[in-house]
Amino acid sequence: MTYCVGLLLRDGIVLLSDTRTNAGLDNIATYRKMFTFEDPGERVIVILTAGSLSVTQNVLARLDEAIHDDAPDTPNILTAATMLQVAEIVGSTLNTVAREVSVKISSMENQAATASLIVAGQRRGGAMRMFLVYPEGNFIEATEDTPYLQIGEHKYGKPILDRVIRPDTPLAEAEKAVLLSMDSTLRSNLSVGMPLDLAVIERDACRIGHARRIEAGDAHFAAMSEAWSKALRAAFAQITL
Amino acid sequence: MTYCVGLLLRDGIVLLSDTRTNAGLDNIATYRKMFTFEDPGERVIVILTAGSLSVTQNVLARLDEAIHDDAPDTPNILTAATMLQVAEIVGSTLNTVAREVSVKISSMENQAATASLIVAGQRRGGAMRMFLVYPEGNFIEATEDTPYLQIGEHKYGKPILDRVIRPDTPLAEAEKAVLLSMDSTLRSNLSVGMPLDLAVIERDACRIGHARRIEAGDAHFAAMSEAWSKALRAAFAQITL
Repeated sequence: MTYCVGLLLRDGIVLLSDTRTNAGLDNIATYRKMFTFEDPGERVIVILTAGSLSVTQNVLARLDEAIHDDAPDTPNILTAATMLQVAEIVGSTLNTVAREVSVKISSMENQAATASLIVAGQRRGGAMRMFLVYPEGNFIEATEDTPYLQIGEHKYGKPILDRVIRPDTPLAEAEKAVLLSMDSTLRSNLSVGMPLDLAVIERDACRIGHARRIEAGDAHFAAMSEAWSKALRAAFAQITL
Repeated sequence: MTYCVGLLLRDGIVLLSDTRTNAGLDNIATYRKMFTFEDPGERVIVILTAGSLSVTQNVLARLDEAIHDDAPDTPNILTAATMLQVAEIVGSTLNTVAREVSVKISSMENQAATASLIVAGQRRGGAMRMFLVYPEGNFIEATEDTPYLQIGEHKYGKPILDRVIRPDTPLAEAEKAVLLSMDSTLRSNLSVGMPLDLAVIERDACRIGHARRIEAGDAHFAAMSEAWSKALRAAFAQITL
């Protein structure tokens, strides 16, 4: 499985993904699930992926191929006029690939290959937007009322987000919140694993502000995780029935 | 849906269930999901239920009927020699009922009726034991390594249990932990709802120590929930990246 989360806040966008991929419990591998497309200052798009790797890799490969294709009449995600059109291109590509793969699979076994994606970004002059693209290619958008979107194993890490994330949460706090949301998920579900990919996009920058990979032994993350455990236990001890 | 949790600790057993039942989103009702069977000082058994109400009600009705049936040769859950045999009776009954109901349902639509149960208790002279009975009737048992079992919407409330529950957690702390685990679930999932049923069984008492229903407006629960929110936010504010 997977856990990916995106926050759409007043000050910017914060995205976090894990990297664990498994086909059964005895076939575990590390694959990047965060993909960035950037024309710095003009446009930035980040795509997070969950689901069948054969679907998500193919979707990303086609989106990438379309960018490098010399077909100026067909809009790609770096030339589409709006973020809504970007989401539509991603959704259509996902629908096409998922159907192609599922035809192959269903000829062999009674199963479908599905994936879902988070697409977030901004083009110069437009608003920051973030979409959750469903396996069928239709999508919903994050709003002020629901400023975060999750794909994959989303339940373990939801309570912390429900409690601390508001549209005006500052970016540094938001970064902390997604890392702690991931930390809860890592502790409770083996199918989600380090390393992690984090990206922060500041409002109107139209470029990745900072991005980092957090490796399994990362001292900062381990210290934060340990401090959070301690703080939670202390908070728990304070509560009276 | 449902959220039920049981803890098997050195000092006793703590059980908590919600009461929300839904058939679709527009048909919501309140049904008890905690059932106690007691021969005080001799034997205490608590069953928590999740899944199709038509299955769980029928299972409980049959277990109850067997107790009041004048067939002394057939052991029921109050006369079975061990807690393991109690779990076997409950598992067999669940298997029988689920198959009967599923035959009816599958003749109408391509679907099955399933349920899972937590069975916990102690007979005089025996050990406290707690089982999770799967929809097929087979079961697993809580151990020192895994002192808690959950059924229904278990993911939201798992992180807090993973952090604070050890076999030697005192019963008052354990009660707090299951209530906070439920609180996280209530906040993040609409299909789990108040009132709640709580039961505590002290080691070797072989009777319910205390049981209470926590209603929607319960001032203590509301205060604890609010205090936990505050403590979590304060803990969150303390953490540095």
